[in-house]
Amino acid sequence: MAERKARWLWYPGDLELYHALKQNFSRVERGCGWPAFWKSEGFRQRVAFRRVYELTEPTRFRVAVTPGAVGCVDLDGARYPLDAEIPCGAGTHRISIHVGCIACVPAVFVSGGVICSDEGWQVEDYAEPPVPAAFNRYFTDPGQDVSEWPRVETLREPTQAEPVEGGTLFTFPEEFSAALEVETADGSRPMVYLGESRAETLDTANCYYFARPDARGRLPRQALRWAFVPGLTPERVRVRAVEQRVDIPVRARFACDDGELNRIFEVAARTHMLCSDVFFLDGIKRDKWIWSGDAYQSLFVNRYLTGDREIEQRTLTALRGNDPVTTHINTIVDYSLLWILAMGVHTDSYGDMDFLRRMWPKMVSLMDLLRAQRDEQGFLVGRKQDWVFVDWADFDRDGPLCAEQMYLAAAYGTMARFAPEGERTFWLAERERLMAAVERCFWDAEQGAYVDSFTSGRRHVTRHASILAIVFGLVGEARQRLLAERVLHNPATPAIKTPYFRFFELDALCRLGELRTVLDEIKAYWGGMLRLGATTFWEEFDPALPLEKQYAMYGDPYGKSLCHAWAASPIYLLGRYFAGLRAEPGAPEGYIAAPAEGFFTRLDCEFPWRERQVTIRLGAE
Amino acid sequence: MAERKARWLWYPGDLELYHALKQNFSRVERGCGWPAFWKSEGFRQRVAFRRVYELTEPTRFRVAVTPGAVGCVDLDGARYPLDAEIPCGAGTHRISIHVGCIACVPAVFVSGGVICSDEGWQVEDYAEPPVPAAFNRYFTDPGQDVSEWPRVETLREPTQAEPVEGGTLFTFPEEFSAALEVETADGSRPMVYLGESRAETLDTANCYYFARPDARGRLPRQALRWAFVPGLTPERVRVRAVEQRVDIPVRARFACDDGELNRIFEVAARTHMLCSDVFFLDGIKRDKWIWSGDAYQSLFVNRYLTGDREIEQRTLTALRGNDPVTTHINTIVDYSLLWILAMGVHTDSYGDMDFLRRMWPKMVSLMDLLRAQRDEQGFLVGRKQDWVFVDWADFDRDGPLCAEQMYLAAAYGTMARFAPEGERTFWLAERERLMAAVERCFWDAEQGAYVDSFTSGRRHVTRHASILAIVFGLVGEARQRLLAERVLHNPATPAIKTPYFRFFELDALCRLGELRTVLDEIKAYWGGMLRLGATTFWEEFDPALPLEKQYAMYGDPYGKSLCHAWAASPIYLLGRYFAGLRAEPGAPEGYIAAPAEGFFTRLDCEFPWRERQVTIRLGAE
Repeated sequence: MAERKARWLWYPGDLELYHALKQNFSRVERGCGWPAFWKSEGFRQRVAFRRVYELTEPTRFRVAVTPGAVGCVDLDGARYPLDAEIPCGAGTHRISIHVGCIACVPAVFVSGGVICSDEGWQVEDYAEPPVPAAFNRYFTDPGQDVSEWPRVETLREPTQAEPVEGGTLFTFPEEFSAALEVETADGSRPMVYLGESRAETLDTANCYYFARPDARGRLPRQALRWAFVPGLTPERVRVRAVEQRVDIPVRARFACDDGELNRIFEVAARTHMLCSDVFFLDGIKRDKWIWSGDAYQSLFVNRYLTGDREIEQRTLTALRGNDPVTTHINTIVDYSLLWILAMGVHTDSYGDMDFLRRMWPKMVSLMDLLRAQRDEQGFLVGRKQDWVFVDWADFDRDGPLCAEQMYLAAAYGTMARFAPEGERTFWLAERERLMAAVERCFWDAEQGAYVDSFTSGRRHVTRHASILAIVFGLVGEARQRLLAERVLHNPATPAIKTPYFRFFELDALCRLGELRTVLDEIKAYWGGMLRLGATTFWEEFDPALPLEKQYAMYGDPYGKSLCHAWAASPIYLLGRYFAGLRAEPGAPEGYIAAPAEGFFTRLDCEFPWRERQVTIRLGAE
Repeated sequence: MAERKARWLWYPGDLELYHALKQNFSRVERGCGWPAFWKSEGFRQRVAFRRVYELTEPTRFRVAVTPGAVGCVDLDGARYPLDAEIPCGAGTHRISIHVGCIACVPAVFVSGGVICSDEGWQVEDYAEPPVPAAFNRYFTDPGQDVSEWPRVETLREPTQAEPVEGGTLFTFPEEFSAALEVETADGSRPMVYLGESRAETLDTANCYYFARPDARGRLPRQALRWAFVPGLTPERVRVRAVEQRVDIPVRARFACDDGELNRIFEVAARTHMLCSDVFFLDGIKRDKWIWSGDAYQSLFVNRYLTGDREIEQRTLTALRGNDPVTTHINTIVDYSLLWILAMGVHTDSYGDMDFLRRMWPKMVSLMDLLRAQRDEQGFLVGRKQDWVFVDWADFDRDGPLCAEQMYLAAAYGTMARFAPEGERTFWLAERERLMAAVERCFWDAEQGAYVDSFTSGRRHVTRHASILAIVFGLVGEARQRLLAERVLHNPATPAIKTPYFRFFELDALCRLGELRTVLDEIKAYWGGMLRLGATTFWEEFDPALPLEKQYAMYGDPYGKSLCHAWAASPIYLLGRYFAGLRAEPGAPEGYIAAPAEGFFTRLDCEFPWRERQVTIRLGAE
């Protein structure tokens, strides 16, 4: 008999929702907890796992549950306690495992030679019909506590212990998330200051994160590259870091004849991997929250770097929460739309139609929420409790915002692509109607541009609507060229100020074939951070400023995140447009790998493409 | 300056939802946890409390939160840690307290001379507009843990320690819920069996509840009247009980010239009070769950016994859960309807229009759920996941069930009575349309009765629809008299078998003026239990059986609950119909107290009526 693979089981989505709560409540800054400020949705606290067995011979089994959970095992109508060995004779048997847990996901692990928690269990929540129970590769040991996501630990020693003002500054070679271990000569437990920059770490009055070691000498897991212990000289204090990361293998490498580009790829990869924990995080020092807009960009990087679909599914599941849905993801209307688009991007990347089918009702219900708040012309507007974000930019926000409608049109397109046969025309018609209304109301033929607002009369133009029209393919080639000329290359149009939206602009430029411009930008912007000594890429960067002016943001002297997921986009840009690996439905393997011409004399790289590795080589063999 | 009354604050309803989860997960039988089998809804895990102060002089304050919660205090945009003393100068100040907690309700206690958690705080959940923060009289001490509902403890000694089969049987004078304390001569921690009956307690193989004392010698809180410790003789083991009850004062007494009736009132009062914990429970041994149908009946008793509106509001709040609502209360369609009716009964009892206004949107949304599942004739039918219960009875369940429509019609009536002015006619029209359809489809003129089902063609008649038509006043007097004659007094109509529905039948008989029949029944049925030694009233009772046959129910030898809330209904029947205290909108105090004539030569009783005590006396002064 083949070995049965038992593992922990839970109601689909609940483990993600529990750990998302933990993640979004984990931010601590200057001694203040800062739980994410959006509707925080819980896991199911009462579920039942069910299965029917046909046994040819007697067997025994045992059920473990989440610590603190209550419940019992119902075998053919007789109840047994949890954690007891239960005998079961030959014949047909109905097993139900009832579990309730307030503080954590109610999960079960069934151990036994025949009866065990492998494939085949159903779970129900007393609201919807039973569904197959969920599991993953991280929770396969009956001794585990599902409230703790397992992380690989690596010991890291500082490269320097430097006496500074009567204390000791420890320097690590690179930034990471770690539990610091502190050993003092006198056994004291001193306050320890951690920082992403040397300046932040030594500025104890303004440093973001400080803590005292616990009784074992450990600090909570936190992002750091430097650690400062005031009042103890290097002979009297030692630290080492236990780096903790979720096990997700990197499956890409990039080597070309431009050493700077190679280093950009490498540091972008570090940045992405540090922000790839249980979920895609925006940054590892700040916010440590799961934002839909940030996660959307991480999907593009992730498919070229790890090909790990599980972190994408965990993130998409956690962001979306349960039905019925009443609030927008992270309270932001465009982040709900980006989640719909993300479902399309993810499905394109991995072709996981099971996941799509499972999430499809939630795509429809989220679209229902969005559609319910359209005005009489079909334009999406924010409700009182909503945030219409798009970008930090000086939009003319009177009435419906054009860029928001572009997201909506793209979302209609995603729905149309994945809808069941009979429903496609509905979504296509929605998109067509919307784009016709956009053309009628927002298109300014004289300026050759979309105006932000048609209700104010100000005819104000920003880049955003044009960029989105291009990257989502919402307009034809001629219009795209016109937008490039009249908006993107028009110095009068205000420049994109955030790296967040710069992702869309660079993608648009690549789609327009302007690779030289993009490569120059990559080298200037990301290369510029490297020249200032970055070991991870930053939330924002102004090449005109010296290092000591780089740390401030949001009015805070160290507010900027120096390891920020959206800064990893060169992975995607280099992989897709320069190494030239992209989906091609007609191709034998579903992709083509055609490096861009005129940029590299030598190229040796490898990327994941679903289950396979794609090697791309140019020049010297 | 008047003393400020600080207390714990939380999002309205969340404390109830948390404690309802705890309550519904607290059932343990024969070593098996048995969490309630319906959709278990959680509290909000992330909220923010806000308030603006205008200070004339500087002050300081401090914020405590639920143990394990994370968050911070935002004072005019600057963040402070929880549990820190925060200084605040004169002038205008905006305070926000951010709290996240996964395992328990996020609650706050603000201590300070001026700034404190008294009246005036708003709370928001990032989904709905802010609402006034909730509090109650049980949580007023900053040292409290909101996860533990405070209970009054009373030490109770057993009246007897009897050697039985090498062990010791302890007898307490009455049943109660208590934590048993066990002391053994050799310091061992023996298994202890607890029971509602002597027979159950000594039958260790079938006894419902057994446990070993913890390190302090304590057993978990559990219902008991007897305790059996096998293997230890009375010299070697001692027990005492720490009775634990929520502090709710009894405000009624009943004394008439019939000692049996007085004793029935007294034991019914005991029964009701034992089942009145944080919420109305069905029973204290079993199920210890919060059922809407059971709670509905407890409302009628409670208004005559304690006049405590808080337990009613806690129960109604916990049962209803959050919006959007997708499942019926306890999964039972008629229990959703009984919740609507309960809102009306409660409002009639206490006139708390603030509570009604707060709950009104939830009444409407629950009615929306119910109305969405009507058939084309307007009859309510169950969905696949629903349970249409009404009663344990042999109904003809083909198509819509008549009794269910009576509940629906009554619910329309409740909605009409409390709806805002402009919406009343809508609900009245709904009721009129429904009753017309009932008349057309279910009324059998020949039988002078409502048939259970009009679709089967079997024209089967039970009492339920008729009883409900009478108690809810859905038909005129002539029809009521006809139903009494042709259904209620027709020996061919199957008798009501459950005390649950017997409540409605006795109420109907009282409304028909048949008080003598009802009094005879009270003395036979409840008096019968007393004659068998009951110290609390039972879930069910068959006067024809000897004591040793009284304990079985649901196919279990000790399945019957011997302290069951719905058995306390004599309080209501005696208070309303015999002592004659009832609402009378025209009366100066809103009630009349007119004892029924011909039953008592002496009557001396007292009942709560909202804030006042009403004394009713007959005979000797």
